[in-house]
Amino acid sequence: MARYVQDFSEGDRDQKDLLGGKGANLAEMTRLGLPVPPGFTITTEACRAYMRTGRVPPELRVEVTMAVRRLEDAAGRRLGDYHDPLLVSVRSGARFSMPGMMETVLNVGLNDASVQGLTELSGDERFAWDSYRRLVQMFGRTVLGLDGALFADALEEATAARGVASEVDLTAQDLRALVETYKQLVREHTGREFPQHPREQLDMAIVAVLGSWGTERARLYRRRERIPDDLGTAVNVVTMVFGNLGPTSGTGVAFTRDPATGRAGDYGDYLVNAQGEDVVAGIRNTLSLADLERVDPAAHTELRQAMRRLETHYRDLCDIEFTIERGKLWMLQTRVGKRTAAAAFRIACQLVDEHLITMDEALARVSGDELARLAFPRFAEDGGGRDLFAEGMPASPGAVVGHVVLDSATAQERAAAGEDVVLVRRETSPDDLGGMIAAVGVLTARGGKTSHAAVVARGMGRTCVVGAEDVVVDTAARTVTAGGRVVHEGDLLAVDGNTGRVYLGEVPVVPSPVTTYLEEGLEAAFAQAGDDETRELVGAVDRILTHADDVRRLHVHANADTADDAAHARRLGAQGVGLCRTEHMFLGDRRVLVERVVLAEDEEDLRAALDALLPLQREDLTALLAATDGQPTTIRLIDPPLHEFLPDLTTLAVKVAVARERGEVDEHDVRLLAAVQRMHEANPMLGLRGVRLGLVVPGLFDLQVRAICEAVAARRSAGGDPHAEVMVPLVGSVQELHLVRERARTVMAEVGAAHGMSIDLPVGCMIELPRAALTADRIAEEAQFFSFGTNDLTQTTWGFSRDDVEAAFFPQYAANGVLGVSPFETIDERGVGRLVRIAVAEGRAARPDLVLGVCGEHGGDPESIGFFHEVGLDYVSCSPFRVPVARLEAGRAAVAHGGADTR
Amino acid sequence: MARYVQDFSEGDRDQKDLLGGKGANLAEMTRLGLPVPPGFTITTEACRAYMRTGRVPPELRVEVTMAVRRLEDAAGRRLGDYHDPLLVSVRSGARFSMPGMMETVLNVGLNDASVQGLTELSGDERFAWDSYRRLVQMFGRTVLGLDGALFADALEEATAARGVASEVDLTAQDLRALVETYKQLVREHTGREFPQHPREQLDMAIVAVLGSWGTERARLYRRRERIPDDLGTAVNVVTMVFGNLGPTSGTGVAFTRDPATGRAGDYGDYLVNAQGEDVVAGIRNTLSLADLERVDPAAHTELRQAMRRLETHYRDLCDIEFTIERGKLWMLQTRVGKRTAAAAFRIACQLVDEHLITMDEALARVSGDELARLAFPRFAEDGGGRDLFAEGMPASPGAVVGHVVLDSATAQERAAAGEDVVLVRRETSPDDLGGMIAAVGVLTARGGKTSHAAVVARGMGRTCVVGAEDVVVDTAARTVTAGGRVVHEGDLLAVDGNTGRVYLGEVPVVPSPVTTYLEEGLEAAFAQAGDDETRELVGAVDRILTHADDVRRLHVHANADTADDAAHARRLGAQGVGLCRTEHMFLGDRRVLVERVVLAEDEEDLRAALDALLPLQREDLTALLAATDGQPTTIRLIDPPLHEFLPDLTTLAVKVAVARERGEVDEHDVRLLAAVQRMHEANPMLGLRGVRLGLVVPGLFDLQVRAICEAVAARRSAGGDPHAEVMVPLVGSVQELHLVRERARTVMAEVGAAHGMSIDLPVGCMIELPRAALTADRIAEEAQFFSFGTNDLTQTTWGFSRDDVEAAFFPQYAANGVLGVSPFETIDERGVGRLVRIAVAEGRAARPDLVLGVCGEHGGDPESIGFFHEVGLDYVSCSPFRVPVARLEAGRAAVAHGGADTR
Repeated sequence: MARYVQDFSEGDRDQKDLLGGKGANLAEMTRLGLPVPPGFTITTEACRAYMRTGRVPPELRVEVTMAVRRLEDAAGRRLGDYHDPLLVSVRSGARFSMPGMMETVLNVGLNDASVQGLTELSGDERFAWDSYRRLVQMFGRTVLGLDGALFADALEEATAARGVASEVDLTAQDLRALVETYKQLVREHTGREFPQHPREQLDMAIVAVLGSWGTERARLYRRRERIPDDLGTAVNVVTMVFGNLGPTSGTGVAFTRDPATGRAGDYGDYLVNAQGEDVVAGIRNTLSLADLERVDPAAHTELRQAMRRLETHYRDLCDIEFTIERGKLWMLQTRVGKRTAAAAFRIACQLVDEHLITMDEALARVSGDELARLAFPRFAEDGGGRDLFAEGMPASPGAVVGHVVLDSATAQERAAAGEDVVLVRRETSPDDLGGMIAAVGVLTARGGKTSHAAVVARGMGRTCVVGAEDVVVDTAARTVTAGGRVVHEGDLLAVDGNTGRVYLGEVPVVPSPVTTYLEEGLEAAFAQAGDDETRELVGAVDRILTHADDVRRLHVHANADTADDAAHARRLGAQGVGLCRTEHMFLGDRRVLVERVVLAEDEEDLRAALDALLPLQREDLTALLAATDGQPTTIRLIDPPLHEFLPDLTTLAVKVAVARERGEVDEHDVRLLAAVQRMHEANPMLGLRGVRLGLVVPGLFDLQVRAICEAVAARRSAGGDPHAEVMVPLVGSVQELHLVRERARTVMAEVGAAHGMSIDLPVGCMIELPRAALTADRIAEEAQFFSFGTNDLTQTTWGFSRDDVEAAFFPQYAANGVLGVSPFETIDERGVGRLVRIAVAEGRAARPDLVLGVCGEHGGDPESIGFFHEVGLDYVSCSPFRVPVARLEAGRAAVAHGGADTR
Repeated sequence: MARYVQDFSEGDRDQKDLLGGKGANLAEMTRLGLPVPPGFTITTEACRAYMRTGRVPPELRVEVTMAVRRLEDAAGRRLGDYHDPLLVSVRSGARFSMPGMMETVLNVGLNDASVQGLTELSGDERFAWDSYRRLVQMFGRTVLGLDGALFADALEEATAARGVASEVDLTAQDLRALVETYKQLVREHTGREFPQHPREQLDMAIVAVLGSWGTERARLYRRRERIPDDLGTAVNVVTMVFGNLGPTSGTGVAFTRDPATGRAGDYGDYLVNAQGEDVVAGIRNTLSLADLERVDPAAHTELRQAMRRLETHYRDLCDIEFTIERGKLWMLQTRVGKRTAAAAFRIACQLVDEHLITMDEALARVSGDELARLAFPRFAEDGGGRDLFAEGMPASPGAVVGHVVLDSATAQERAAAGEDVVLVRRETSPDDLGGMIAAVGVLTARGGKTSHAAVVARGMGRTCVVGAEDVVVDTAARTVTAGGRVVHEGDLLAVDGNTGRVYLGEVPVVPSPVTTYLEEGLEAAFAQAGDDETRELVGAVDRILTHADDVRRLHVHANADTADDAAHARRLGAQGVGLCRTEHMFLGDRRVLVERVVLAEDEEDLRAALDALLPLQREDLTALLAATDGQPTTIRLIDPPLHEFLPDLTTLAVKVAVARERGEVDEHDVRLLAAVQRMHEANPMLGLRGVRLGLVVPGLFDLQVRAICEAVAARRSAGGDPHAEVMVPLVGSVQELHLVRERARTVMAEVGAAHGMSIDLPVGCMIELPRAALTADRIAEEAQFFSFGTNDLTQTTWGFSRDDVEAAFFPQYAANGVLGVSPFETIDERGVGRLVRIAVAEGRAARPDLVLGVCGEHGGDPESIGFFHEVGLDYVSCSPFRVPVARLEAGRAAVAHGGADTR
């Protein structure tokens, strides 16, 4: 027989699967001897049985009876007794927190009779009827499924009739009448009476909580958050205690350290004569814990002792809910507290210094995302002169100031003219993509964190605030209105993607001291930091990042196309360049040289055009190898189709047609158009690019390999220590790599002979096609290294063209639960990751000294880095600015997986 | 110790790996007691050792000595003896035939002394010196690496000096002088004498043959033909026999049945007083075997007995080379003979009737490619009036007549005007693609079977002849010249892709009687057939195809978008429709309706636009389900991006720009252009299409599922037995399918309720993305069937956009050995096939009753069908016209793999 009910005194914090988070922590506190109101937990097992069969298991009813009797015996009171009633709360509590998704019913046990008992017990008639009123309201909405507005309307009518401003001014008599009205509502809308039997109330509330797990809303939430549907929720039945029984009662929340800043020392809010919901509602001003010490020193002392006990026990910041009922402290909930990024770093180091945790644990307590968040610029501390215009949800971090624009075209126009612009829209759609790219920030009136604007802005790193519901956009009048104030297109707005606040006019932006630390070191950051707290933060970041470097197995390289980028990355801790895209050396003024290559009419023409590119490429690479002296530097041969260097087909076709119409035909344009038309591809991402281009255009790869070799020779002659590697893109078959490698060796030998030195650079390839991963064993016969191009591998594995689909349907896919997170942000372990695993295992089996890395954007993504560590890569390569994040996450992965190495 | 040499008397035909094809068959004939000149085979093991070390293994030298001594002892003559010389030939012979790739040296053992011995022995001085001359020439070119032209030039000078037309008119004296000249050439170009020592000649010839395996030319050939590099060649050393020793000598080739037509009874060519090379050179007219019977009845009888013996032994058509030396028959080679498609079917059935093979074996002896070849139209039998213009290589079959065009633009123009055109080019390039699509046939002057023209034409099923070297294309004069005759652009040419012949003017085209049989049955075909041979052929096809149907496990479905196509496929034997592409119902006049969907400005507009499509789609599907009554019919929801139904962006942009320039702006065009621009995708193949479109455009899939359900209801009401299935394209994640399936069930219930019937159609999906294959276990939870879309799966696995890459670099990839065959023609087992295997195994493990099929073009490809049988699919679906091929190949696969079923 399954055990469906467990008293608080029986469980502990490790039973979260069975008891849910709340139940497990209540049990733990009970076990520690802290003052928890007696109660019991109905296990997730019961919920799973209910979900399976649609019925409450019969055994559950029996077990609840026994548990209630134990409660009654301990309290010496009976559930809903009309003299001396025991009242209980019924609360959901799953393994993972699902805020706002699940149901709660308080004051279960009250009825027309026991309300009298509560009056006697509390000596407060108004309190008793208010409690009863709350029960009927909550029960009606939650358990009986009535529209909550019905009760709210009735309450409003009552206050209006009474001529008072709020419900706190209603008398016991008023509330008694309101209870009648509420019961009438229940009667009308359900065709039956509000249940008077306490046990019936309890059973119905339990079923309602169990059923709330399976609602469409909860399912959708779980799908988005990737919480399995089959976990089920637990239900906690807890003896009611009351913080609203006069001046010696109250309720509060407390943290063992400040979760906002990380400052050491306890921290909390307390509200005298109030219940939990009042604190949340924020109606009255709260007291600090210091104030509580004045008001009730005994309770305060007991609370502090309990908090210290909990922090020592959990070895982490604890978040606590408590109630004081007529001077007696009750602990209602605790959990390891959420905190800001700064608090995470500071608290982790504080706990190390207090010898509560190790440095490994401190490293595990922070994340790359937090480090990244700390590095974002922010608005200068508010000197008081700031003018808040609106507030929404912070969807993508950063702090930017720009001129308001109301549509995509205007955004692109003004951005092209050199202005910083903020795109303000009611909501965004794929049509706004151009404008979002052009803008420094985005503000929308509608939408949540998975709206189009939020998903796309995060994807492209644009600062973004969404769902600023006060904001009205009038595209006809070209104005934005909020709180009665009007902003015209072109006016300045300051958008804070860290807080969701939007200000009028200019607000000074300051770089983060953490960025100063990462870029220039500890001393520079200390010099910039204005206060001890900032210094503590920078010091904590330094200690933890240094520890990460000590423990990590993964090397961190950077994707850098220029010497400047490489030098920047090196300052940020990069140990090499994992991807230098040589095609970026053909942009700008040099486009015209590529145009010559494309327009070449014979081999000789082509050769001349390529020869012109050689010295430029060689100079660029010589500078790069100087910046990475002594470090591995992986140089990828040209990847994109050549037509990418030519003008856009449609634009050019229109230009030529219009010129023809005007009789002003430009022969070069006509020739160019013919070439562009000839080379046009329906799907250029899957076309003539990468190694294919190298095999089809004679001399193209030769030119590049020659430039690399000559740069190596130049650096060696200058006394440098270059470590260039040649990487071939888009290989799908070993024979492609074989042919390129043969040619490359010939060129190496030629350049080596010309310079009187031996040049023998490693040759490897990108693994960015499913076929490359599936035939990695064969490709490894020709490759000295693999670099996983997880961007393209994701595109081909999913059949997604990132440019096309991200804006067009990722928001929708996030909303309907197909994608939890974009597979371009975090590696899709099940699909793309499986190919990576195959290639790692089979590549290394074929060539044990194969060097393995990743140079897709996932190389800088915290979650993905853990995966890459676990599958046994040698390094990750990412954008220079992500290098510190990668260093941290590589350290965390080593701690989490114990330096796993599949070799 | 490895055994490097084996006498003919030791081996047998099963030792092809060790002895090569020629050596194994010589051994087999020796074993059968047939008159094979004594000899021995140097095994492939020796070649592998040579390739490995670059040296001849020392043991080989010893073994050759012993083998030569055995030869000498048996013959009673010594190698190169100056009185009574034993001469030998040294010939390569690998496991797989590599025509023209490998080396042969005849008459080894002749030198200045033994040429006298040969004179004595043969009593023919001219013969002896001619033999010596041939040795020096062959040895010089093959073993010593001299340019063959040197010898040819010297020979020409000799005939010119003598004033005769050909070498046969040279006297013994002349030839003796020529030998001197040849030896002088050797001296000049190698710095050493022509080797006089017979054993030195033999050793050098052996090394040359062994080395010929490793030449770049041979490697390239093997790469293209997918012959492993590590097989190595064997070397056959055979006692020379001479067919050129006067009127009682001769040489010939013979077949045990006619390999061209399949007619029963032996067949061959014989040349009196000639050597093998003379037959190949075709200098003199040959005799038939019947003539041989007259000339030398004894030898003829012996030959016929040997042939009958061989056919009975090999149980198949044998191809024989023989020589008669002064009335004595010698068998020089045999192998199972190549034959035409017609011969393959006829001979297979003849052998069954002669109780030599079973029907299963007969089935294994023919192929789907052969059946397809028999079904191509061909030119009517030549009545004598046909005017041959040129001849090239048959690169892609069929027989077409069209007007000559010389460039792609003209081809497209005239084809658009309704003309049949034949594109004639020196060679084709990707620029000619438009013209090749427009033309009915293609003729090129340059290039071989892997040239651009050949590969592209085969890919698109265009009749094509390449490498017609006589043809000169003059694009300035707009003429094509061959053999002094001039054809002007616009003149008629008839191109025979079956034979490579090109005729002037009109040639009548007749459908193949095999096609008549497949389409209309045996009686109609018999009625059409003009002769017994054709009737025998049609009968053979019928017997073998019927047997294939009996033994095959794979069902054969057809890809059919219309009722007509489905009915046609059913006549050809299809057992259902595996893919009906519903988007094809939105083309033509209906494009404007899709335009309304795209331009819809709100939900209501969209709904109205979709509603207008409903009746059309329902009618189409009702007709389709009538055509497939009682058969499974898999209907795929819309797959392509909606912008494919709109005009081309560039064309429309130019139109609008030009109209604007002229002040004639059309508002509809402007609106349409805005929509086209908004919906433009960089890589539409990887964009908003398939299930993504269904999830993003509200009501689109609902409309289609409703149309399917209503068509089912209509058919049932009419007494029909419809079996519609709903297929979702481009699924990459189980959640996508889940969402579509939930909606589809709702619609099924609604339509069912409206018609008072239960409608519960199977819902499944395409597996055409690598991720779908990699997560097949999860997708199978929601899918009742999988259909592998191997076209798209090939595109995504390789990262190939078929439209872009096939013409642009497949020819080059075929030439440099990256691709043996296009992965779009035959499934790439190693890459794409591995994904199919994963999906089959894991999908079926998750859902044992999962139905598995393939609807990519590979479903009609012979080699791929074997693979699909072997991995355990339930059916293949292919173009209607490929249905008979698929039936045949499914039968062959069942015979070959013993009905393998992985379930």
